Amino acid sequence: MGKIKKRDDKLKVELGKRMLDELKLPEDLKHLSIPQLADLAAEIRELIIKTVAHNGGHLAPNLGVVELTLALHKVFNSPEDKIIWDVGHQSYVHKIVTGRLAEFGTLRQFGGISGFPKPAESAHDIFATGHSSTSISVGLGLAKARDLKGEDHKVVAVIGDGSLTGGMAFEGLNNAGHLRTNLIVVLNDNEMSIMPNVGALSNYLSKIRLNRTVYKVKTELEQFIQKIPKVGELTYRYLDKLKDSLKYLVIPGVLFEELGFTYFGPVDGHNLQQLTDALVDASRHQGPILLHVLTKKGKGYKPAEENPTKYHGVKSFNPQTGELPVNTAPPTYTEIFGETLLEIAAQDERVVAITAAMTDGTGLQEFSRRFPNRFFDVGIAEGHAVTMAGGLARAGMKPVVAIYSTFLQRAFDQILHDVCLQGLPVVFALDRSGVVGEDGPTHHGVFDLAYLRMMPGMTIMVPKDENELRQMLWLAMKMDQPVAIRYPRGCGLGVKLAPQPLFKVGEAEIITEGERVAILAIGPLVEQAKQAAELLKKTGVSATVINCRFVKPLPRETILYWARRVEHLITVEDHVLAGGFSSAVLELLVDAGLGKLQVTRLGYPDRFIEAGTIEELHALYGLDAEGIYRAVNGQYHKLAVVEARK
Amino acid sequence: MGKIKKRDDKLKVELGKRMLDELKLPEDLKHLSIPQLADLAAEIRELIIKTVAHNGGHLAPNLGVVELTLALHKVFNSPEDKIIWDVGHQSYVHKIVTGRLAEFGTLRQFGGISGFPKPAESAHDIFATGHSSTSISVGLGLAKARDLKGEDHKVVAVIGDGSLTGGMAFEGLNNAGHLRTNLIVVLNDNEMSIMPNVGALSNYLSKIRLNRTVYKVKTELEQFIQKIPKVGELTYRYLDKLKDSLKYLVIPGVLFEELGFTYFGPVDGHNLQQLTDALVDASRHQGPILLHVLTKKGKGYKPAEENPTKYHGVKSFNPQTGELPVNTAPPTYTEIFGETLLEIAAQDERVVAITAAMTDGTGLQEFSRRFPNRFFDVGIAEGHAVTMAGGLARAGMKPVVAIYSTFLQRAFDQILHDVCLQGLPVVFALDRSGVVGEDGPTHHGVFDLAYLRMMPGMTIMVPKDENELRQMLWLAMKMDQPVAIRYPRGCGLGVKLAPQPLFKVGEAEIITEGERVAILAIGPLVEQAKQAAELLKKTGVSATVINCRFVKPLPRETILYWARRVEHLITVEDHVLAGGFSSAVLELLVDAGLGKLQVTRLGYPDRFIEAGTIEELHALYGLDAEGIYRAVNGQYHKLAVVEARK
Repeated sequence: MGKIKKRDDKLKVELGKRMLDELKLPEDLKHLSIPQLADLAAEIRELIIKTVAHNGGHLAPNLGVVELTLALHKVFNSPEDKIIWDVGHQSYVHKIVTGRLAEFGTLRQFGGISGFPKPAESAHDIFATGHSSTSISVGLGLAKARDLKGEDHKVVAVIGDGSLTGGMAFEGLNNAGHLRTNLIVVLNDNEMSIMPNVGALSNYLSKIRLNRTVYKVKTELEQFIQKIPKVGELTYRYLDKLKDSLKYLVIPGVLFEELGFTYFGPVDGHNLQQLTDALVDASRHQGPILLHVLTKKGKGYKPAEENPTKYHGVKSFNPQTGELPVNTAPPTYTEIFGETLLEIAAQDERVVAITAAMTDGTGLQEFSRRFPNRFFDVGIAEGHAVTMAGGLARAGMKPVVAIYSTFLQRAFDQILHDVCLQGLPVVFALDRSGVVGEDGPTHHGVFDLAYLRMMPGMTIMVPKDENELRQMLWLAMKMDQPVAIRYPRGCGLGVKLAPQPLFKVGEAEIITEGERVAILAIGPLVEQAKQAAELLKKTGVSATVINCRFVKPLPRETILYWARRVEHLITVEDHVLAGGFSSAVLELLVDAGLGKLQVTRLGYPDRFIEAGTIEELHALYGLDAEGIYRAVNGQYHKLAVVEARK
Repeated sequence: MGKIKKRDDKLKVELGKRMLDELKLPEDLKHLSIPQLADLAAEIRELIIKTVAHNGGHLAPNLGVVELTLALHKVFNSPEDKIIWDVGHQSYVHKIVTGRLAEFGTLRQFGGISGFPKPAESAHDIFATGHSSTSISVGLGLAKARDLKGEDHKVVAVIGDGSLTGGMAFEGLNNAGHLRTNLIVVLNDNEMSIMPNVGALSNYLSKIRLNRTVYKVKTELEQFIQKIPKVGELTYRYLDKLKDSLKYLVIPGVLFEELGFTYFGPVDGHNLQQLTDALVDASRHQGPILLHVLTKKGKGYKPAEENPTKYHGVKSFNPQTGELPVNTAPPTYTEIFGETLLEIAAQDERVVAITAAMTDGTGLQEFSRRFPNRFFDVGIAEGHAVTMAGGLARAGMKPVVAIYSTFLQRAFDQILHDVCLQGLPVVFALDRSGVVGEDGPTHHGVFDLAYLRMMPGMTIMVPKDENELRQMLWLAMKMDQPVAIRYPRGCGLGVKLAPQPLFKVGEAEIITEGERVAILAIGPLVEQAKQAAELLKKTGVSATVINCRFVKPLPRETILYWARRVEHLITVEDHVLAGGFSSAVLELLVDAGLGKLQVTRLGYPDRFIEAGTIEELHALYGLDAEGIYRAVNGQYHKLAVVEARK
């Protein structure tokens, strides 16, 4: 460490060496001066820009937290002290200074280091994150475990102002404010999530930002209060209350104070001295504390500072100019969705669009400009987005909820209850379905068919290409019931766009016919199945390829027809095997008696089960002894079970 | 109406007739005087007590909102004006005054009227509710639809203080405060959800309640401020700010104000005059407004007032004495769970219990008393509960999350990411699985096997009786991974309790053996299957009955062994057929080659899919043309697909 302390500040320039390579991190951060930290920050920015320019990744969020991350690791002793990164796409700096400098070039590559915190990678990654608004809850769990075990380390949850709009963050604040254990919440306020933030909370934080001078007047004001002459009984009665009320003037974070937190801030998130001082103060505080830090997304890289939304998450780009590659490929599914919805909305003024902080990501920029009154960005609040859509639909609108497949997992219960249970015509546009690439497990959309398929009344469409996406969206908007369309990340196949759908709900497309094998595929994997059939043809195996289009309702007759003709059925899906498309096909086959073995499945049919005593309902659906007895004898029990076979 | 207006206030007593039967409701409410409304309130209370005493139902919540409901229907014109009841178990009064008086005796019975709002029943039931914290989101959707359609009716969301702890309510407030359309949120503050509320928000509301006199001093204070002499420049500079800060003194609901709402209140929720005045004021207000109403759960029925938790939801009882039936039946699954967890916690101090406002309902009262430091009631906040459990587990604790099956739907994403993805040892105790009876579709727990089964790393146990629940809980607590145990509402079978499990994970129990049929059952339906086998025996059909115990991992060898021996397999589950237990069995059978037809299923195996380009991942998992080609030729592709077959 002596080496570091004695280090000349010009060392880097003179020797062409990076401090990054010289230091033992994060330990050495403790001994660096503020100017040294600033130099290190510059090196880290350079490394991040270079790496992300090559590998793609989250640029602007990481550039915004360079100083904050260094200050955190200077003040706290990770991994004894626990630092949790909400969402986690801003953890690159943390990774660089906690032992992953050498591997940083493999960021987000197959087999490389993850773009999100990953406990398997390092003891410094306390919790795997990827979805928003979990850090306060995780932090509270860690803090209470610490208390129970009699330990005394610090727990720090770093959460963005965007993530704070997620209801779960509020649930965490509410509970932490009640339990009153030591927990430091660092609010990384950059006025954005991915898009500029919306919502009342965002306005509230803006007010605090505008009011930054307020601290200075605190002492003056207190002196002033002392000088108020005591004029009669009224003053005596109310002076204490009046003084009390002053706290709302001198403490800008009253909202957090009311939830039981002590509010510190706001602090300049690029001023290392202010940051380290504030973090030291926070670390000495008893009880839950919220430290409000103001940062700038993209800080230190002009293109990203000027357009942080564009540089939030990027593919490779030119690091000198910031130039992003021009898409010369076919339009993306996202673009086709956005364009088609515009056409539909122009014809039908009942159409409204809802997104959860993903206007650009879901292709709704132009919609938001053309139809601002019919466009709702609700912030990172998927549950609310879905239920609000339910309300809009109940009042006669035609809501389209555009949310990535993985994020819609947050609204599972709301889709089930607030849309399907009441049969409301809400269309769910699930972008980024299937595997999504470099963002990894928290972002793959590989559970959607399973979680949507169990919902009574839901129709699930999967377009094989961008034209089918167009057609399905038109079809869905004409239906008077819940519909989900799942489509992948990335470019379409470059096919010609036809105006209107030529198929009906539950209607499959036979791509090619053959006698030995039938390949049932969905989505862009239909194209792969088609190519497989061509390969098979060369080996003398004739295959039928079916684009099933609908996972619910399945193209029943088509599947059964081919299942009776071929020797071998192959199902292909970009989705987990447990409960997804293939399971639906198996259910169909077996229920139709196409198993070697007769299998009878007793349970609830695809409808919401009414109220009644448990015994009544079990009897009605053939789940009592008599029902099982009858099933063995091939007599389906009462109406409901028969319905299940339809 | 003339008849009503001239009606003698003593009519009811003199003629022994009820006003309820004389009035055309809700229209006639407009013309009733406050004393007449009070009489009507008394009649309604009597009717509710009588009906719930017979049918069971939600007693205390409905007794608490009699005046509020009458005032709402007096001031607003339902169904043109939209009234949304959060959760909806407090909608009995609303049902009585909106055309369902005659059917009220069928409340919660099979084929009778629902205990929750149900649009199919009445145009006055704007939205079906059942789960908490949705009403603000629904209301905002209805309000924005109104604006877009150029209508001008009112929208009123009635939400309890308990429901307000759900993060989704905050998401709704945040969005409504931003959109600033006309929306009336009535906060029905009874200091409870089902249990006394917890959380910082609850403390905050308590402070407001204690400060009820504050309104009176507002004018005095303003006069006082005017009198402050202007003593130098300081006063000039800060007087405006000082006056501003006074709003925090005179407006108790600053938290709501900061979120963009105008706060009115608190108002006595049993004072019809105050209520109607406040609602009229609220109806004239522009923008979002929160009216804070203080009510008393169980109001007007002494046993319920004194013990509102006990009388929140009840089975039949003696209306005169309030006496609840004594349970002489075998202990409930809930009780056995609570007792067993106590035993385990006494032996292992790492064990902590988490519930979401359901301490009593999940059998954790005694745990909360014996181990207060290891018990967390987080309020109605299922997502937070699960993620906090993840944090506790990450720090070495053994958390048990006890939440009803239907409510755990709210935490689908959190179970997947914050527990399963990181393989954390959290045990989920899913009480009220399967159909639950009279509460109906929003409360049946019939989706849990499907939504949990798709999660990599999850173990799912289903006890056939209360003793197996005991054994499974012991087993689960010894495992170092996510486990879910789903068990039904109600009493066990009265079996003897054995201390420790004698079975391993994935091990089935053969109840009886036979050659023709194998019945695969789970949970208490095993008993039904056993009885069915006895019926079958009498007709000469010999049946094997298998208690599968585990839905994940399935007792693979046992199922395959019997599937190869018998002619007919029957699966029995208290769960939807789409994606549940039977689907898992079909997947197993078909993957093992037990179909008449060979079926190969391509997709993702039961693991979280790593990061990589879409093409890399598709190739790895055999979803490209080559992979499909190989599958036809029986060559499974690369490691991953082979793993899927294990």
